[in-house]
Amino acid sequence: MSLDTLLDDFEAGQVTRDELKQRLMRHTFVDAGCAKIDLHRELRAGGPEVVYCESKTPEQVATIFQEIVSHNGRVLGTRADVAHYNAVTKVLDARYDEVSGLLVVGDPHSDPGGKIVVVSAGTSDLPVAEEAAGTAEFLGSRVERHYDCGVAGIHRLFSVMDKLADASAIIAVAGMDGALPSVVGGMAAAPVIAVPTSVGYGASFQGLAALLTMLNSCAPGIAVVNIDNGFGAGFMAHKINNMARQQTLK
Amino acid sequence: MSLDTLLDDFEAGQVTRDELKQRLMRHTFVDAGCAKIDLHRELRAGGPEVVYCESKTPEQVATIFQEIVSHNGRVLGTRADVAHYNAVTKVLDARYDEVSGLLVVGDPHSDPGGKIVVVSAGTSDLPVAEEAAGTAEFLGSRVERHYDCGVAGIHRLFSVMDKLADASAIIAVAGMDGALPSVVGGMAAAPVIAVPTSVGYGASFQGLAALLTMLNSCAPGIAVVNIDNGFGAGFMAHKINNMARQQTLK
Amino acid sequence: MSLDTLLDDFEAGQVTRDELKQRLMRHTFVDAGCAKIDLHRELRAGGPEVVYCESKTPEQVATIFQEIVSHNGRVLGTRADVAHYNAVTKVLDARYDEVSGLLVVGDPHSDPGGKIVVVSAGTSDLPVAEEAAGTAEFLGSRVERHYDCGVAGIHRLFSVMDKLADASAIIAVAGMDGALPSVVGGMAAAPVIAVPTSVGYGASFQGLAALLTMLNSCAPGIAVVNIDNGFGAGFMAHKINNMARQQTLK
Amino acid sequence: MSLDTLLDDFEAGQVTRDELKQRLMRHTFVDAGCAKIDLHRELRAGGPEVVYCESKTPEQVATIFQEIVSHNGRVLGTRADVAHYNAVTKVLDARYDEVSGLLVVGDPHSDPGGKIVVVSAGTSDLPVAEEAAGTAEFLGSRVERHYDCGVAGIHRLFSVMDKLADASAIIAVAGMDGALPSVVGGMAAAPVIAVPTSVGYGASFQGLAALLTMLNSCAPGIAVVNIDNGFGAGFMAHKINNMARQQTLK
Amino acid sequence: MSLDTLLDDFEAGQVTRDELKQRLMRHTFVDAGCAKIDLHRELRAGGPEVVYCESKTPEQVATIFQEIVSHNGRVLGTRADVAHYNAVTKVLDARYDEVSGLLVVGDPHSDPGGKIVVVSAGTSDLPVAEEAAGTAEFLGSRVERHYDCGVAGIHRLFSVMDKLADASAIIAVAGMDGALPSVVGGMAAAPVIAVPTSVGYGASFQGLAALLTMLNSCAPGIAVVNIDNGFGAGFMAHKINNMARQQTLK
Amino acid sequence: MSLDTLLDDFEAGQVTRDELKQRLMRHTFVDAGCAKIDLHRELRAGGPEVVYCESKTPEQVATIFQEIVSHNGRVLGTRADVAHYNAVTKVLDARYDEVSGLLVVGDPHSDPGGKIVVVSAGTSDLPVAEEAAGTAEFLGSRVERHYDCGVAGIHRLFSVMDKLADASAIIAVAGMDGALPSVVGGMAAAPVIAVPTSVGYGASFQGLAALLTMLNSCAPGIAVVNIDNGFGAGFMAHKINNMARQQTLK
Amino acid sequence: MSLDTLLDDFEAGQVTRDELKQRLMRHTFVDAGCAKIDLHRELRAGGPEVVYCESKTPEQVATIFQEIVSHNGRVLGTRADVAHYNAVTKVLDARYDEVSGLLVVGDPHSDPGGKIVVVSAGTSDLPVAEEAAGTAEFLGSRVERHYDCGVAGIHRLFSVMDKLADASAIIAVAGMDGALPSVVGGMAAAPVIAVPTSVGYGASFQGLAALLTMLNSCAPGIAVVNIDNGFGAGFMAHKINNMARQQTLK
Amino acid sequence: MSLDTLLDDFEAGQVTRDELKQRLMRHTFVDAGCAKIDLHRELRAGGPEVVYCESKTPEQVATIFQEIVSHNGRVLGTRADVAHYNAVTKVLDARYDEVSGLLVVGDPHSDPGGKIVVVSAGTSDLPVAEEAAGTAEFLGSRVERHYDCGVAGIHRLFSVMDKLADASAIIAVAGMDGALPSVVGGMAAAPVIAVPTSVGYGASFQGLAALLTMLNSCAPGIAVVNIDNGFGAGFMAHKINNMARQQTLK
Repeated sequence: MSLDTLLDDFEAGQVTRDELKQRLMRHTFVDAGCAKIDLHRELRAGGPEVVYCESKTPEQVATIFQEIVSHNGRVLGTRADVAHYNAVTKVLDARYDEVSGLLVVGDPHSDPGGKIVVVSAGTSDLPVAEEAAGTAEFLGSRVERHYDCGVAGIHRLFSVMDKLADASAIIAVAGMDGALPSVVGGMAAAPVIAVPTSVGYGASFQGLAALLTMLNSCAPGIAVVNIDNGFGAGFMAHKINNMARQQTLK
Repeated sequence: MSLDTLLDDFEAGQVTRDELKQRLMRHTFVDAGCAKIDLHRELRAGGPEVVYCESKTPEQVATIFQEIVSHNGRVLGTRADVAHYNAVTKVLDARYDEVSGLLVVGDPHSDPGGKIVVVSAGTSDLPVAEEAAGTAEFLGSRVERHYDCGVAGIHRLFSVMDKLADASAIIAVAGMDGALPSVVGGMAAAPVIAVPTSVGYGASFQGLAALLTMLNSCAPGIAVVNIDNGFGAGFMAHKINNMARQQTLK
Repeated sequence: MSLDTLLDDFEAGQVTRDELKQRLMRHTFVDAGCAKIDLHRELRAGGPEVVYCESKTPEQVATIFQEIVSHNGRVLGTRADVAHYNAVTKVLDARYDEVSGLLVVGDPHSDPGGKIVVVSAGTSDLPVAEEAAGTAEFLGSRVERHYDCGVAGIHRLFSVMDKLADASAIIAVAGMDGALPSVVGGMAAAPVIAVPTSVGYGASFQGLAALLTMLNSCAPGIAVVNIDNGFGAGFMAHKINNMARQQTLK
Repeated sequence: MSLDTLLDDFEAGQVTRDELKQRLMRHTFVDAGCAKIDLHRELRAGGPEVVYCESKTPEQVATIFQEIVSHNGRVLGTRADVAHYNAVTKVLDARYDEVSGLLVVGDPHSDPGGKIVVVSAGTSDLPVAEEAAGTAEFLGSRVERHYDCGVAGIHRLFSVMDKLADASAIIAVAGMDGALPSVVGGMAAAPVIAVPTSVGYGASFQGLAALLTMLNSCAPGIAVVNIDNGFGAGFMAHKINNMARQQTLK
Repeated sequence: MSLDTLLDDFEAGQVTRDELKQRLMRHTFVDAGCAKIDLHRELRAGGPEVVYCESKTPEQVATIFQEIVSHNGRVLGTRADVAHYNAVTKVLDARYDEVSGLLVVGDPHSDPGGKIVVVSAGTSDLPVAEEAAGTAEFLGSRVERHYDCGVAGIHRLFSVMDKLADASAIIAVAGMDGALPSVVGGMAAAPVIAVPTSVGYGASFQGLAALLTMLNSCAPGIAVVNIDNGFGAGFMAHKINNMARQQTLK
Repeated sequence: MSLDTLLDDFEAGQVTRDELKQRLMRHTFVDAGCAKIDLHRELRAGGPEVVYCESKTPEQVATIFQEIVSHNGRVLGTRADVAHYNAVTKVLDARYDEVSGLLVVGDPHSDPGGKIVVVSAGTSDLPVAEEAAGTAEFLGSRVERHYDCGVAGIHRLFSVMDKLADASAIIAVAGMDGALPSVVGGMAAAPVIAVPTSVGYGASFQGLAALLTMLNSCAPGIAVVNIDNGFGAGFMAHKINNMARQQTLK
Repeated sequence: MSLDTLLDDFEAGQVTRDELKQRLMRHTFVDAGCAKIDLHRELRAGGPEVVYCESKTPEQVATIFQEIVSHNGRVLGTRADVAHYNAVTKVLDARYDEVSGLLVVGDPHSDPGGKIVVVSAGTSDLPVAEEAAGTAEFLGSRVERHYDCGVAGIHRLFSVMDKLADASAIIAVAGMDGALPSVVGGMAAAPVIAVPTSVGYGASFQGLAALLTMLNSCAPGIAVVNIDNGFGAGFMAHKINNMARQQTLK
Repeated sequence: MSLDTLLDDFEAGQVTRDELKQRLMRHTFVDAGCAKIDLHRELRAGGPEVVYCESKTPEQVATIFQEIVSHNGRVLGTRADVAHYNAVTKVLDARYDEVSGLLVVGDPHSDPGGKIVVVSAGTSDLPVAEEAAGTAEFLGSRVERHYDCGVAGIHRLFSVMDKLADASAIIAVAGMDGALPSVVGGMAAAPVIAVPTSVGYGASFQGLAALLTMLNSCAPGIAVVNIDNGFGAGFMAHKINNMARQQTLK
């Protein structure tokens, strides 16, 4: 029963005030009519149209993509493989990036104005870094990439120091010892989102070592996302970049 | 030898080009003259004057505080106890908050304009939440606190939903199951900084359970700091809030 | 030697009281004749006819199924694959569900009357949720399914709140952050059985994160089963539902 | 603004239907007037009046107790020490049990009719077992205790086998190897709530060994609560026992 | 240089006493000629002729087998697959057991007289149990097998209680909750060697749960070997059985 | 009802055969009359009179000691402190060893004949080594101690190699790297019981490092007990030594 | 712009001193033209030309190899497979070792003079031991190999004791219990680099057990590298060996 | 029986060749006469006179110190407290450093010539860094200290870059994120010994985070010692420094 029907019934005296109160408490109204979708969009402000493809069949992904595109005109798929792409491209005009596994339909959101910088330690971190960069770009942010800047050759990082200076947010991606964000955090004014990757072997324990390093960073202004979670980092960075725009608009 | 002296010698022919190149490569010049202090300030933009008191003696803290205040006029101490306060208050006009363990001398930095909201799950998370709030306030941000909003009584969180809507950044503090940031992240547009606390017993493993929950949150736009690291969360939130201001100023 | 033979011998004076006592103490009679099976059924009240298929060959499963069906008329197989199904279907009239991996011969047990509700966080949790639901149904319970109710979009859960109100037991299935049972436990009067799934990546550590979250839930009235253990949850929920019936019958 | 006031204003035309809908969606009404407490009671059916005392001062506990007793007439405190008791007993007529750390004011809830059996492996598990038993009793359940029944002397457990037969729910408490629930689960028809305790040394890792044992139990019909969480087990068992009553009443 | 040659030279005056002493101290003679093998046998009394096949090529295994058989007349291979068997059987008269992965050439050692009992919890533990049994048999011990005696159906264990009474050593093999050795240890006078298996899923963590259970067993007279280490258990049990014989011979 | 009464009633026709069978199945008779104690002794052959004192009050220990001594004439207490000793010594003639924490009343059991050798790596392992030695001595075994034989100075171990040759069982105690049992196991024919101790710091993780080392020992004929579990090792070694005697007596 | 060009411009007056200083501070010159490679060589003294092949395509490896060889005349690839070798061998004269996975182009560096000894516990440790040996050899060190010296047959280690005496550095490689470095460290004057391997099963946890053993070694003069990190050990050993030479040259 | 006596008896015909061979095999001669002490000194070349004081009484330490000083003239005690110092200073002329806990009697060993540099990340790492420095100094090495060089302010590290250039070995001490050795290893030619400290909180897990970071360092030429093991690092560094001297002397 929709909220309107309920209030109609209340006004018509067919529902007592006590009954009304009891129903309100239980339902919270979110599933009243089309409010569900609207609220959904409102709740996940900045881009709810994201589909995690990995555990879904190509057919499922194609169906979900069609549904979302019919409402929103655009959609982003993460952890997609070629089979997903093939299924989607039959019914929609899609772009696919094999490195990051991102599958996109439609134009990116409008640019909030600021810049996000993605730095990564090694070439093996590329897929995660690209997932982060591509996600932020889909959401509308401008992204600058500086890869292969690991701290074991610290000069490589210094050569991009200038570029960090005017970023709204920095995404620092590293596996193995995960030391990159600590050094970046000590050099830049922007908030740093650290992404541990599962790159490494032995006692890297699939990214646990890098995760712990980043959580224990001595440099302030660093927060961490899950191992290999480029999507999460890109989304977080965009939210920060977006905040800047919203403040500007006020 | 300062960079100027070195270049003087090079121009005077007392240092060959090869020698010059070798020295440049080794020194990187950052400690040339007073650049060290300047760079230092630049590097840790937004507030370098923070002292971690826990492993220092009251006398050490008092000395460090005096030195920093003589340069910057203000300083923040974290994890301070009453003994630290007593030592500092003899020589400086200090304010101390027993719950958060923050020890402050001087006025906060100027307000960048936005608002940070701190929500916490239970009353036991108070010290960490207050460390986060107090840190952000010292750095200049305006902070709004909403405590005791754990998801086991989800209505408590809904009652503050309005307040989350216009935040630049949200800090969500929780121990035990650490589920609060997941729900907050699904409801708010602002970036969420999740702080796991060591509150709990048994298989909470001193905050490990909450940490893992937060890293695995299904809601996008969440990043995590170390267990009980209220300071780190406050600093990160301020950096985000500050970004917004900087964009506005451009 | 069966218990009857032993007692015959005792009555016939061929076994002394001392001998009888010694044998009773050692043997506990469970392997006396067909008593073994009877006791077995008694001990594991509510359905002992369950076969874990995963590590067994199709032939072994077919043989075991035939043996149990010849005694009990029904049997449930868990973690079965198509090969198991093919082997069993040659000799018995079997039903197989590919999603849950459940393989059933015979009618379910009689319905104890109450209702079990299964809620799950995401579509990837489906196999585990269906294993739980199918197990409870085989044991005789009525089951209601509400899937894709993760807390990152909390309104999805609220839309099924009414359905939780009259359940005898609730099964809450979630991977990643595992926060669902905490919210459900705060909203429902029925006991909640939490099932962590291995869905997730990075620091989910194959379900460890969700497991710890659930064990540390702040909401009372929650107990947890092993990671991905839909069968265990379904069995536990049925036992609870069954308890209700037994009390009614007294 | 309370829900009644809001509905008054709506009926009086001072609040439009759209305004009303908007407010309902945001607030969920739970903090409207005294509704908060009512809902609270409804949500956590069977006893919300529980205070975790450990991290609170005696004065805080006394204040909270007075407030709850003034509304509900009764309250249960867990993990209380003598200081908490002394503070409460000055203002209220309280009972305190040093072994379990339970602090009670007022009469228990009314008895739902069934019986809960608490079995424990060793005498060192007593505090946890008593916390479970006392919690269930406060909530209104009848509880039977059988302690020191560890599986290393399996006959001790068999001597209480009869008592398990007519329980609505069984709580099995064990530290060290945590094997008790596996054996109990194989012998009894009632659902078993397993409670690992931190009793043990070396590779028991403060209860982790027992926790893992119980999660991996081969016997069906077992679910597990957090290490040393007697309160959680007692609450869960009461909810199960209560379910039985509710079915009876229908 | 062999020990005999060295002593010959010493007696012939070609090696001084000092030289002799120095060589003895450094070399310990073990690599002097064929002494190495002899010492080897002495050191690892009861059967050094064991080859771990898993990480070796079929050709390597065949070569090693031939070498050992030419000296000792017999050899045992563990973790062998069919390819190993095929390679060995071309050059030697070998027996292979697919379940345990044991590959044997030659007759077992002579029987020390006592009896080893192997009990296992489930049918999935069979490969490990058989590796233990086959190893002990190769070393000369008589072995009695009682499988599928898990504690979730405790009567199955009681039915073999008599058989445990006269064992020299008991090997108890179990995965999942690993509770079997605790119950066996409480019922039998013989020393119990507990073998955790990697059988299980979820929070069994590839046998870690069973390992911890066994290490924390409340029953005395239990010691534990590595996860899935049937060979180690069989060897240990044989050493115990052998000790009994040696005492008898004195 | 005792077993005799039950059989009387059966013979008198007051209990039917069916009733008798049903009771036998349920009760297993172990608690029938004084059989409980007798069985107890039988089950835990070789010495059930052991009391773990650590978590008990001095008064409780004194009471339990008196009860056991009145039945058995002797008792062993482990992990006792001076307060336990003082309480027991008031009522019984007790001996106390501060290093091992063993508290003994009465004479040891009779000597089975063989010899147990206890070797330890460092002086810090003394308390655990002494707990092992004292336990085995109380149970009747003859024990030889060789301490401070760590592998970092391998010659110290070689100097006792002769003594290992005629042991029935060897207990090897080590903390830190826990490498001692591997070397001992390669040199001796007797079964080796490895005891990891919590001696060490940093990544020893309270004995976890030593535990894992020992479980992974390359030398066959080694089994492991819990961290710091000297009692368990002493008991296991005595059981092995006892086996040897029993075989001799046959 | 290269450093030379910059200095030319400075001398020519086209770059002011202030501009020069600013550029020096920011860039550190390392990416100025070919300076990058030079500095690189200086920084990672003793051999920067190492390529981790595992996560790279054969084409990528071939390209990188060509580039490095064109500058340095030599290059080392680690964790290479046959496909990498095939791709490289088409364009360069390469040597490939299947056991260690090392892929080499060009002559080794010049010999610093000392000797590195590599000892390993078992034949399964061969790939890691060879990666260590081959790396050190490529860097110019002379290497002596002694394999299969595990401590379970301690005499095997003693037979190579002489060889350890004049090593500049010792690399001790072991899986399973990882006890080898402890014994070697107690016997040799040279610094010992311990390499845990992932060889083992069950509670070896892919090398974690060996890693912890080595970190907790009681013998002084031991340091540890990552699990299976033969390359790291070879590099470290060469650096030590190289140090010796450098001291000699002074 | 000493080796000489044994050889006398052999030459005198009182011991047969077979008897001689058997004894040689068993004894390995290391404890023949005074060889034990000599070997001991030889085995632990560079300084065996180190006493770990932490778990010893002041009296024990004083006794051991006297004994060693009477043989060697010097001794080093680690992890000593004031009570140890007081006991030793009564009988010997001792020096004590409260920060490092080092207690020294006698002059340091003679200087091998090279230089060891100790760098540390923060002031809280001082005790561990000083234990490392003091140990190396006692063993005879010259040590240079550069503290508070954490990577969060990377310029601090660059200011000491020159000093790293001519070190024989570098000890890099860091807690929290443990990133210091990675950056140092990328800048210096000398081998780096990384020491993780337990400094930090939350997910530093008492130094585990720093330990894993260091083991996974991307920079080659780094090896790691146990958490807080300053002594081990100092010893290892000295051994490396000493190697350099030994090569020089050849």
